[in-house]
Amino acid sequence: MAKEKQISKAVIKRLPRYRRYLWELQKKGVEKISSKDLSKLIGYTASQIRQDLNNFGGFGQQGYGYSVDYLYEEIGNILGINKRYKMVIVGYGRLGQAMASYIDKNEQNFHIAGIFDVKQSIQNVEFQDAVISTCGTLASFIEKEKVDIAVVCVPPEKAQLVADTVSSAGIKGIWNFTAVDLDIPETIAVENVHMSDSLHALAYYMQDME
Amino acid sequence: MAKEKQISKAVIKRLPRYRRYLWELQKKGVEKISSKDLSKLIGYTASQIRQDLNNFGGFGQQGYGYSVDYLYEEIGNILGINKRYKMVIVGYGRLGQAMASYIDKNEQNFHIAGIFDVKQSIQNVEFQDAVISTCGTLASFIEKEKVDIAVVCVPPEKAQLVADTVSSAGIKGIWNFTAVDLDIPETIAVENVHMSDSLHALAYYMQDME
Repeated sequence: MAKEKQISKAVIKRLPRYRRYLWELQKKGVEKISSKDLSKLIGYTASQIRQDLNNFGGFGQQGYGYSVDYLYEEIGNILGINKRYKMVIVGYGRLGQAMASYIDKNEQNFHIAGIFDVKQSIQNVEFQDAVISTCGTLASFIEKEKVDIAVVCVPPEKAQLVADTVSSAGIKGIWNFTAVDLDIPETIAVENVHMSDSLHALAYYMQDME
Repeated sequence: MAKEKQISKAVIKRLPRYRRYLWELQKKGVEKISSKDLSKLIGYTASQIRQDLNNFGGFGQQGYGYSVDYLYEEIGNILGINKRYKMVIVGYGRLGQAMASYIDKNEQNFHIAGIFDVKQSIQNVEFQDAVISTCGTLASFIEKEKVDIAVVCVPPEKAQLVADTVSSAGIKGIWNFTAVDLDIPETIAVENVHMSDSLHALAYYMQDME
């Protein structure tokens, strides 16, 4: 990550969450909100929220609070999700298939250009306009198509091999579902998905109700 | 949620993350850590961390910091993931299948007792010792087997119907992958999975490297 602009991952992880709540507020027609009310809504401390947003120059005005529309749009711009990305799905087992349809349904700006798997059999598969192929052609496809993101859904033991392949092919980001810590160049962004965090939070809520 | 012990969801969501980092520290043989060093590691402010852990009485000692082993174990106890849970998977399409194998591989304390789908065809499927059946028998199975958690992986338009069914059958928690806000009794815990949060964070890291 660019050293001159080192913002903690935890701050970045909170932004999509802010954005979702702001979207809800927009739907309700709320125009402005204070960090205090945002705090009640989202559950972070008001000072944490001000500190988070100040990383980006902040958008609040003393005594006025934040403009919901503006903050929603700005967070989208900050996250960079208002532009289009090219993706490949690597590993087209259960999870790969699930993520492909999730992305297709929910993320208009993230386009699945190719789907790759070790199995020859998937070449009979169709998914929108995506190229379906075996992993042998993965690197050349990423180079030729200038693919931005690899969604890695392979078994853990294959994770590093895939990471090496897409890295040397010039991928910019890896969305890693393998629960393996990948060893990749610092110039490539990685996001590791930890489903368990969500399940463990649920376990807490449940006992909290007993 | 029990009103006398209202802890913000955001705090709870951070605990599994603390726990993962503490696990990494354990593996490295680190015995104690200050909230300041924990802050550098995880990216929350030191005051946020102290505030989070103080919700549970806190575990730190002035000038000593936190015992890694103790804090790891305690957070597990707080989350309630050191005991066993019975689950059903509802909706055995791509996502349902992916989550079933994820849980089976990664969460020893969460046992998949049953798998339910509208399709008759899945009754030819086998998954560990799980009962496979159509949704018609879902309610009676939850009651009979005292199932704790329903993992809801059905299409959005079916989400509320499934929520109603499992709720009236006495489910304690719902792990909701449908991206639909479910209307359920306050006595039932819900955890909504938002894959997009993770993808949007990745998009940020990528542009941060350009």
